[in-house]
Formats: sequence, structure tokens, C-alpha cells
Amino acid sequence: MKFCSECAHPVSSQVPPDDNRVRFVCNNCGAIHYQNPKMVIGSIPVWERDGELRILLCKRAIEPQYGYWTLPAVFMENDETTGDAACRETLEEAGARIELHELFSLLNVPHVHQVHLFYRATLRDLDYAAGAESLEVGLFSETEIPWDEIAFPAVDITLRAFFADIKRVRQEGSQFRLHTQDVLKPMRSR
Amino acid sequence: MKFCSECAHPVSSQVPPDDNRVRFVCNNCGAIHYQNPKMVIGSIPVWERDGELRILLCKRAIEPQYGYWTLPAVFMENDETTGDAACRETLEEAGARIELHELFSLLNVPHVHQVHLFYRATLRDLDYAAGAESLEVGLFSETEIPWDEIAFPAVDITLRAFFADIKRVRQEGSQFRLHTQDVLKPMRSR
Repeated sequence: MKFCSECAHPVSSQVPPDDNRVRFVCNNCGAIHYQNPKMVIGSIPVWERDGELRILLCKRAIEPQYGYWTLPAVFMENDETTGDAACRETLEEAGARIELHELFSLLNVPHVHQVHLFYRATLRDLDYAAGAESLEVGLFSETEIPWDEIAFPAVDITLRAFFADIKRVRQEGSQFRLHTQDVLKPMRSR
Repeated sequence: MKFCSECAHPVSSQVPPDDNRVRFVCNNCGAIHYQNPKMVIGSIPVWERDGELRILLCKRAIEPQYGYWTLPAVFMENDETTGDAACRETLEEAGARIELHELFSLLNVPHVHQVHLFYRATLRDLDYAAGAESLEVGLFSETEIPWDEIAFPAVDITLRAFFADIKRVRQEGSQFRLHTQDVLKPMRSR
């Protein structure tokens, strides 16, 4: 940020009165321009038939991590809820309609100023198709997932936790639980 | 937003190419200025002795809702995690040190572009004191809580869900569960 979005004068980095953090402050009108983490909201779309469980993944047609695989996920927009965002992006990125279930994972990614949330979901049908942000979309069982080609740590953590949980839930008849983890470094540099 | 924060030229509201939402777009350099929801992170600080459970509340010394009671909560900052934010604000607003437990509630508040998260927590000691943003700080049992003077719907919902849950947890030996709700209108206008 170089200029004030309210009066177009230059901003400088300084600690405002009654604050303890460096902010962008306008040298003319005094406006303080706070910057806060963004939320990335995704779904874990499941299709299960005859005891085989598969998850819908998207191959990214955009940077970052072009060509790597991800769960459908997007920056949350104003005027929507976290659930709205999960359903919207699953439709936009994978052309898929889902029934949304409860929150499954919360991943803090402080080095990129993001918090990722993933919801469990059930695919309503198999009428899915790659959207503009995806090269292709497909269903994968645990062994079929391209584990070495996952785009983001938050997606890798969520998928691994999901498959561990589903085994526990089936064996013990217990509930899914919320997984919380802090991701402190990128998965790969390109 | 009136001016581009990168080049100081006026922005206009328009739908950028390959997008479907109105954004602030710079008429000079073409920069797109996205605006996204902010996260508000809080704690539910509990003190329990001799079977009596009380919760730490803060009386607000700042607008909005000056003079009304809230759980310690704050806008999450860049470079911190949700857990960091909950502990930081409980210390700043109530002078209290906590042991943080799991996420208890997630409240979407789309009309103000916010998502509120509250974590269960245990007070480490009774050495608390009002910070700069609080008029006073106090411990309240369920019947002592000033229910008509709670600052925000997300706090009211979280407190009521917490007391309902604690009864269930004690009676059934079950676990706390995550409460998710969408808050669609303000608690009060002033």
C-alpha cells in the first residue's frame, strides 16, 4: 500500500496512538488502513457407493500451484457465509452440487495471512465438470489420490486427517472431529 | 474506497474480466482491490471451583456497544494464528492468562462482513484486570450474567450454547461440540 484509499495522499508505516502494531497511516487525513487475514473456504466432496469412498479433486488451471491438485476452495467474499462460500466454489470450480455437513478442519497459515476452513460434504450426483479455474476434475479413492501432486499443505493435511477419521468413525462408530493445525511453511517453492 | 492504494488514481466499481462480482478497480493501473470478511476471535474464559462455574466478561469502554458486556474478542491480525489472537486479546482486554481449549463456536455475521470464532478456555488464575478497552471485568455464573446487556448476538449465542452444552457434558459424560450459526441481524441499534 502506497497511497490512502480515502484521500490519495501517501501513507507511511507507523504505530498509531493507542495501538502497538505498525499500520499504514495516511500522512494527510490520518486514516488508518488495517490489514487482516483472509479466509479460504473449501469442501471435501465425498461420493460413496458399494463401500468405496472417493473424493472430488480439481487440477488447478491458475497460479499459484498451476497443474497441482486441490480440494475446491476459495477466498470468502463479503455478504456470504462460510457455508455459502464452500457451496459456491464447489459449483464454480468443479461444477458440482453438494450437501454441506459440519466443519472438518481449520488451518492457520500465518505466513500468507490466511485461515483455511474445510467442510465435509456429499456430492448430490456425478454431474460435475471442470470450471474455468480447473484443468480437470476427478474422483479419487485414498490410494488413487496423487499425494505427491497436492497443491497446498492445508489440503494435504485435511485429506490425510479425513481418511484417518473415516476409518476411526467406521470402526468405532464415533463422530468426526474438528481438526485444527498451524501450517508454518509452504509445501513447495516453484 | 475512492482512490487506488497503488497509484493514487480514482477507482470505480465494476465487474472485472473473468469475474462475476463488482469490485473497486483502478481506472489507471487496473489494480483490483478485493474486500473480504474479517475474522473476530474470542475466548470463553472459565473459572470453576467447588462445582460453581463462572465466566469472565468485559464491559466495553469503546464503541460499538459502549457499556455493554462481551467475551474478550478482537479482529485477528496478520502474522498470528486464531489461537494467538484469542490469548492476546484475553490478556489485553481483561488482563487474564488462559489455557486455550478447542474451538466452540463459529458465527457468520454477513451483514457486517465478519466471521466470529470463540474458543473454550480456562483461567490460569484470578489475577485479571480491565484493560484499556474495558470499563470493568468480572466473573459471572449463568444466573449472574447480565443477559439484557450483552453487546453482540455472537456473544449471546455463544454464552447460551456454552451453558446448555456444559449441562449436557456433565449429565451425559459427552463431549463439547462445535456450534455454527448465521447471525442475520444486529442485536440492537443505538
